[in-house]
Amino acid sequence: MTYRLHYAPDNASLIIRLALEELELPYETVLVDRARTAQQSAEYLALNPNGLIPVLETPHGALFETGAILLWLADTEGKLAPPPESAARGNFLKWLFFVSNTLHTELRMLFYPAKYIGEDTGHQAALRKGLQKSLATHLQKLDSLASDGHSWFASASPSILDLYVVTLIRWLALYPIETAHWFSLSDTPHLSRLASQVECRASVKAAIKAEGLGPTPFTAPSYATPPEGSAI
Amino acid sequence: MTYRLHYAPDNASLIIRLALEELELPYETVLVDRARTAQQSAEYLALNPNGLIPVLETPHGALFETGAILLWLADTEGKLAPPPESAARGNFLKWLFFVSNTLHTELRMLFYPAKYIGEDTGHQAALRKGLQKSLATHLQKLDSLASDGHSWFASASPSILDLYVVTLIRWLALYPIETAHWFSLSDTPHLSRLASQVECRASVKAAIKAEGLGPTPFTAPSYATPPEGSAI
Repeated sequence: MTYRLHYAPDNASLIIRLALEELELPYETVLVDRARTAQQSAEYLALNPNGLIPVLETPHGALFETGAILLWLADTEGKLAPPPESAARGNFLKWLFFVSNTLHTELRMLFYPAKYIGEDTGHQAALRKGLQKSLATHLQKLDSLASDGHSWFASASPSILDLYVVTLIRWLALYPIETAHWFSLSDTPHLSRLASQVECRASVKAAIKAEGLGPTPFTAPSYATPPEGSAI
Repeated sequence: MTYRLHYAPDNASLIIRLALEELELPYETVLVDRARTAQQSAEYLALNPNGLIPVLETPHGALFETGAILLWLADTEGKLAPPPESAARGNFLKWLFFVSNTLHTELRMLFYPAKYIGEDTGHQAALRKGLQKSLATHLQKLDSLASDGHSWFASASPSILDLYVVTLIRWLALYPIETAHWFSLSDTPHLSRLASQVECRASVKAAIKAEGLGPTPFTAPSYATPPEGSAI
């Protein structure tokens, strides 16, 4: 069975697309039409009851949660992450979970504060301010990690953690459109170098084409102009 | 080397203790004195730069992040989770990541809103209200999952996911002290059954004794009266 990725352009599905491309796996894509909130349709909720993008259909069922799909793909293929028996596995996992439950979650709150705190714009602004502070701290931790010389982060060939982090960094530079100016990639020079490295990959060229990401999606991102669907 | 668990009573380290007990692994504990904010000491930050409890010292270094430690222990021992090559692995991982990055994160925000939104009590109350709504929805998803008959969740013998979920449920019934009354375990009957099952385990008896959790820590929890240290 060919993998089937349910995606919207420049959504978290992009991270899975990058992993599938890096692994050179055959896959087809199904657009989730965000303009019609298709991620909340009965059909989509049958795949992911949480109504979030992405879903990856596999021979073992429909998988969701970006971190889980990435880890499952890496372990299934034996690439892009230290294998379970490796001495590096635990150290790799702790940062993968950190990126999933702290960095990625903070981005989601920054982009969709109403989901967490309701429609009051004063409350939303307070939450965004707190999150910017917290994100700045957490990005520094990852910048420090990127300078430590681990084989599984910011080294010569990309890991699932690299693909995950550079995509989150892309979004920080772009969203929310009105307030993204607080973020500067130059504050984290090691992550900046990582973004440059990953940007050269064939996997990224393929994603740029498929999702209309522009020539420098990580080092100097611009808003997606996708051939189909919408990012928001 | 014996494992060394850096813990505070009734903190996330409790979940790791339960896993260590279920796996019958030798371990020693080191109290992190929260009353003196020892988790922010230079010594502790050298183990976990994020200053969060728990840390598990292993032959492969100091691990942190509850979900990462749980998965690493399960894979290393070949117990308490579907192994990497299992057909159930992907489905298990997607819910483990969900519990880590959604349920657990929402609890942390509910308990420590100032970290996310500052000291304004109006903003904090708005955030808590939003989180209660979101948590109620997410608990229903897990209740539904618990009724589905998976081998790795709410079945006869506990998985790391079971240990994780029942501990989070315990805290929802207790914290924050002033506003915990919104939560009722009876709203999620399948999770209630899971709590009863896990409560009978020898691992739980050991944890009750070590951390002063009282006789029914999951089905009818009371505040911890630990022999050393403090929960908050």
